Amino acid sequence: MSLESKQIATIRTLAADVVQKANSGHPGAPMGMAAMAHVLWGEVMKYSPKNPDWMGKDRFVLSNGHSCALQYLMMYLTGYDSVGMDDLKKFRVCRSRTPGHPERHATKGIEVSTGPLGQGISNAVGLAIAESHMAATYNKPDFKVFNNFTYVLCGDGCMQEGVASEACSLAGHLKLGKLIVLYDDNNITIDGDTDLSFTEDVGKRFEAYGWQVLEVKDANHDTEAIKAAIVLAKQETEKPTIIKCKTVIGFGSSKEGTHGVHGAPLGEDDIAQVKEKFGFDSKQKFFVPEEVLSAYRGKIDEGKKMVAEYEKMYSKYEAKYAKEAAEIKRRFAQKLPEGWEDVLPTYKPGDKALATRSLSGKVLNALANIMPELVGGSADLTPSNKTALGCTVDYQSTSPQGRYIRFGVREHGMGAIGNGLHAYGGIVPFTATFLTFIEYMFPAVRLAALSGHKHIFIMTHDSLGIGEDGPTHQPIEQVNIVRATPNVLMFRPADGNETSGAYKVAMEQEDTPSVLALSRQNLPQLAGTSIEGVSKGAYTIVEEKDPDAILIATGSEVALCVEAAKLLEGKFSIVSMPCAKLFDEQPIEYRRKVLPFKTPIIAVEMAAASGWYKYANHAIVMRTFGVSGKGSHCMDYFGFTPKKIAGSIKEWLGNAGKEMKSHGFAVAA
Amino acid sequence: MSLESKQIATIRTLAADVVQKANSGHPGAPMGMAAMAHVLWGEVMKYSPKNPDWMGKDRFVLSNGHSCALQYLMMYLTGYDSVGMDDLKKFRVCRSRTPGHPERHATKGIEVSTGPLGQGISNAVGLAIAESHMAATYNKPDFKVFNNFTYVLCGDGCMQEGVASEACSLAGHLKLGKLIVLYDDNNITIDGDTDLSFTEDVGKRFEAYGWQVLEVKDANHDTEAIKAAIVLAKQETEKPTIIKCKTVIGFGSSKEGTHGVHGAPLGEDDIAQVKEKFGFDSKQKFFVPEEVLSAYRGKIDEGKKMVAEYEKMYSKYEAKYAKEAAEIKRRFAQKLPEGWEDVLPTYKPGDKALATRSLSGKVLNALANIMPELVGGSADLTPSNKTALGCTVDYQSTSPQGRYIRFGVREHGMGAIGNGLHAYGGIVPFTATFLTFIEYMFPAVRLAALSGHKHIFIMTHDSLGIGEDGPTHQPIEQVNIVRATPNVLMFRPADGNETSGAYKVAMEQEDTPSVLALSRQNLPQLAGTSIEGVSKGAYTIVEEKDPDAILIATGSEVALCVEAAKLLEGKFSIVSMPCAKLFDEQPIEYRRKVLPFKTPIIAVEMAAASGWYKYANHAIVMRTFGVSGKGSHCMDYFGFTPKKIAGSIKEWLGNAGKEMKSHGFAVAA
Ligand SMILES: [Ca+2]
Ligand SMILES: [Ca+2]
Repeated sequence: MSLESKQIATIRTLAADVVQKANSGHPGAPMGMAAMAHVLWGEVMKYSPKNPDWMGKDRFVLSNGHSCALQYLMMYLTGYDSVGMDDLKKFRVCRSRTPGHPERHATKGIEVSTGPLGQGISNAVGLAIAESHMAATYNKPDFKVFNNFTYVLCGDGCMQEGVASEACSLAGHLKLGKLIVLYDDNNITIDGDTDLSFTEDVGKRFEAYGWQVLEVKDANHDTEAIKAAIVLAKQETEKPTIIKCKTVIGFGSSKEGTHGVHGAPLGEDDIAQVKEKFGFDSKQKFFVPEEVLSAYRGKIDEGKKMVAEYEKMYSKYEAKYAKEAAEIKRRFAQKLPEGWEDVLPTYKPGDKALATRSLSGKVLNALANIMPELVGGSADLTPSNKTALGCTVDYQSTSPQGRYIRFGVREHGMGAIGNGLHAYGGIVPFTATFLTFIEYMFPAVRLAALSGHKHIFIMTHDSLGIGEDGPTHQPIEQVNIVRATPNVLMFRPADGNETSGAYKVAMEQEDTPSVLALSRQNLPQLAGTSIEGVSKGAYTIVEEKDPDAILIATGSEVALCVEAAKLLEGKFSIVSMPCAKLFDEQPIEYRRKVLPFKTPIIAVEMAAASGWYKYANHAIVMRTFGVSGKGSHCMDYFGFTPKKIAGSIKEWLGNAGKEMKSHGFAVAA
Repeated sequence: MSLESKQIATIRTLAADVVQKANSGHPGAPMGMAAMAHVLWGEVMKYSPKNPDWMGKDRFVLSNGHSCALQYLMMYLTGYDSVGMDDLKKFRVCRSRTPGHPERHATKGIEVSTGPLGQGISNAVGLAIAESHMAATYNKPDFKVFNNFTYVLCGDGCMQEGVASEACSLAGHLKLGKLIVLYDDNNITIDGDTDLSFTEDVGKRFEAYGWQVLEVKDANHDTEAIKAAIVLAKQETEKPTIIKCKTVIGFGSSKEGTHGVHGAPLGEDDIAQVKEKFGFDSKQKFFVPEEVLSAYRGKIDEGKKMVAEYEKMYSKYEAKYAKEAAEIKRRFAQKLPEGWEDVLPTYKPGDKALATRSLSGKVLNALANIMPELVGGSADLTPSNKTALGCTVDYQSTSPQGRYIRFGVREHGMGAIGNGLHAYGGIVPFTATFLTFIEYMFPAVRLAALSGHKHIFIMTHDSLGIGEDGPTHQPIEQVNIVRATPNVLMFRPADGNETSGAYKVAMEQEDTPSVLALSRQNLPQLAGTSIEGVSKGAYTIVEEKDPDAILIATGSEVALCVEAAKLLEGKFSIVSMPCAKLFDEQPIEYRRKVLPFKTPIIAVEMAAASGWYKYANHAIVMRTFGVSGKGSHCMDYFGFTPKKIAGSIKEWLGNAGKEMKSHGFAVAA
């Protein structure tokens, strides 16, 4: 058996063993893609196992994340510190470094977390955009500081997901010539043969997107054909490439080519038969022939040498282009530029009333002027989202130095691409659509939170206040899902100061995304609001001693509460709560000061009630979907005018509130 | 001017007037699509304005819902009772019958609510599946009871959305020959020219999906070419057809062909100029030439005649095939078959522990046996979701009578197709995936709720309990978004009786969707649970007099609480809350009885806290994402074992709970 054949056989048997030991996982895809993986890690990819953070590395994405046993074992074979043999034996064990799907935060060397299908390939579009943008921004005729390919492995599932369709269509438009996808075309999914539901001509579809489409007829064995296809892919600089690699799922198993090998261990007998078939000892587990390990471990020195050469080049670059080099360093360290807070606008009461979406546009532009790392755009709602940047041009194939991305009507693709931009390093992505349509992209928001991507989601048109577009466009439940998701900050600023404050906190994060919910309608600049207040999550903007009740509100409802309080007899303190999660992180003394026991607390928000009862005894909220009509009419119809809010507060304090009062008013916050 | 030209000019000027009067809306698309609309309503479509509920009608979907002024004015011109001239003048006025996007519940004659892009065309795939399925089920050689086309108008936005890609790929696979899409190919979106982001070859992409692709070069004028294309579309019975209709957005406006006419009224001057150009009086508003109105109103009699002929045919069918006719009648009336409740399984304590996903599979199959209207499937997770049906075969082009749909890995398309199945009438759709991935399809869940589609979302693998697949697959925030959304029931049953109870309530709905969150792991059959209990939303399953605290839980955590209570000193009542929304609808006396004031209440759920503080003073919940590991290990790590829950309860009652107690324990519920 040739060394190469032995290497590929080792990948297959090791994958089977890893999944068997875990007694859980997916052996079929790793065994089917073994030759592809061998070509990538063994020959094609530029990487250094001992320098997983190397800026110059090729980026790799395992879009069919369920096949991660493959990635872990390649990392082990090639000598990554993060995956030893012990880690392979702890595959899918609680809190191991080899979880059931690749997690960027769990395993050094994983670029993006995958598993939810279609996300990885879409992240890869972001990684490829990032490379071309950074190259256009920083490379010099004599220095290719940024010059890498992005490789993707994916399966039938990713090909069927809409998010991948969106991202790949955009990738073709943007002519991302350094994006190379190897598609594990094995005609099997969980339900069975792809004939059941997936008979489209994938190659033709990708040609329609503007991709180069290549095919490898026997990717189980034919490593030469895989390599040759990758050579062609690299040569084509104007188009991304997809290589349809025909494989047999679970290659070697007695159940190969069926969905029986997709999602469950093969069983000891089958594994023994696989090992025999490949000329290995059927009884030995986790066996890696010495010559196989030694061949792959050669990557350690090879990688170190590559890094050393790169660093030599880079120090010359640093000497000649000190400013650029310093900026790159700052960006990759996620440091903000000196004095960045100074550009945040502040407002006084009496300053012009403006929509928070417009105020957002001002902050975003102020920051973009001094932060070249701000790169992003809108899903075809630029004029509405107010995200146009004055300081740059569109990112297009003819202007890759541009920082404004026209995502088209592709919210989900946009979100996943944004995550990829951040994963590359050096970029703070922002993406925009209407708040209601955050639901089109929520799986990407969730992955930003889970993987720790600093990603600013600019969501305008945040309530009934949007008016005529009606209930299909008026958010109700959207802020609740963001607030319920771990590691993401949900901001709903009330005016200019709070909009600046929201951006300030968002920019200070390193591995936490932020969502900004912004009004379409104009809002007054309030007394008492501040950038500092936002950082505490909630703070008192109107303070009364021994108030009859405390009103908590967010966004446009804060001003409504200020007016409502004026219409009421009695004393009402007002708390603005732009970010509940930040408030939860404050010391208990602060929280009790803002929301004391024994005072009735009433929340007001034009959204579903969900989380409010943690802070309030009563919530004036939306209980149904909205209606189409002028924003002010809709708000009136649902009771969100100062007068109606005042009436509702008075009524509650006199009835249900009275009953509750007799039992105390303990809030959970 | 020919009558036809005058008709088309009337559509254009009327659209401009409607949007101008509203001072809000989208004139560009209606003006561009005027000739297409004229051909559809004036010549091609089979419909009866006075019988909008006619089962035999062609189905029409305006997928680019923002152009609804067009649909409303065509309904006015052809004589629908739901849209009079007054309604056109109340376009986008609060609570009018002509909202800013088409709403199925607001305007009789609208098949599906659209606006969120990509949904309508995907609903249409469901409508076309429904037609072919009903035809295969009920038509007889001599009777074509079901025999209609589904027509769609859509724009560039729908073509870019991933949900449409998913649905259209499946439509090609299923060879839906009676689905005809007219694509308003005008090269303009909100951000500007489609060159900015959308340069793929749409026709080629649809060919790759297996569609027939036709083109009309001048769809501004060439009605003959539009008609000819539709004739070809009808002739092609093995493929859905997309007709690329080249138009100029805002045709007639001085700003025609630009994004300036997309989303804002043209202004009085421009409208005057349009009217002059078309030979109309520039000063007259909402003008409809008599001959134009009279020509379109001819559709009233034409439609009545069609319905009369259909009814004649149908009564013969009824006479000959009484059983089928009765079943059709029952199905379209959304009545359940006699004695349907009797098939719901019940369980006793001591019966075998089973996962609620498996229990769901049993109920679903029991119901499917007697309810031919149950039609649905899974997004490639059939073996995991336990949704396979024993009583039928797959729905495929070769077996359209089949009721099990293989959706492929296309969650979002699946959700939107399910809504279309319900919109057709006579079908109760069910769709399935992992609970985490409800986020991939949530815009469709929301539209089911908004539009009133009875649609059963079967979401398995509902917590940390799924284990090794890890945090990308473990739900945290998912139940919260469903609970926060109006008009959708979120069920998380604890065992077999509650699973049956959840299905019972779900089946009793007519215009409310239901989401079922189901466990992967086995759960014991509990004492005290019942079908009846589920219908109250929450109920006491372990009752103690003057308990030290009440524990509320859902799903798998109910059994954990029962065990935890046994480990604690003191008395603990236990409430199972399978559906919070149903509980909220109970009389206050019932709610106070289950959750009385002054007793500490502690909620336990392996999900985000969000809504719990409405019912509880303390919540033992998830504050972070999960981890990959055996389900039992993950649950232990995060404190969800009886012992750890008991410890946590004891700790809280002794500390924070004590402090709160001194202030009372008022819950908002
Ligand atoms: Ca596959
Ligand atoms: Ca368009």
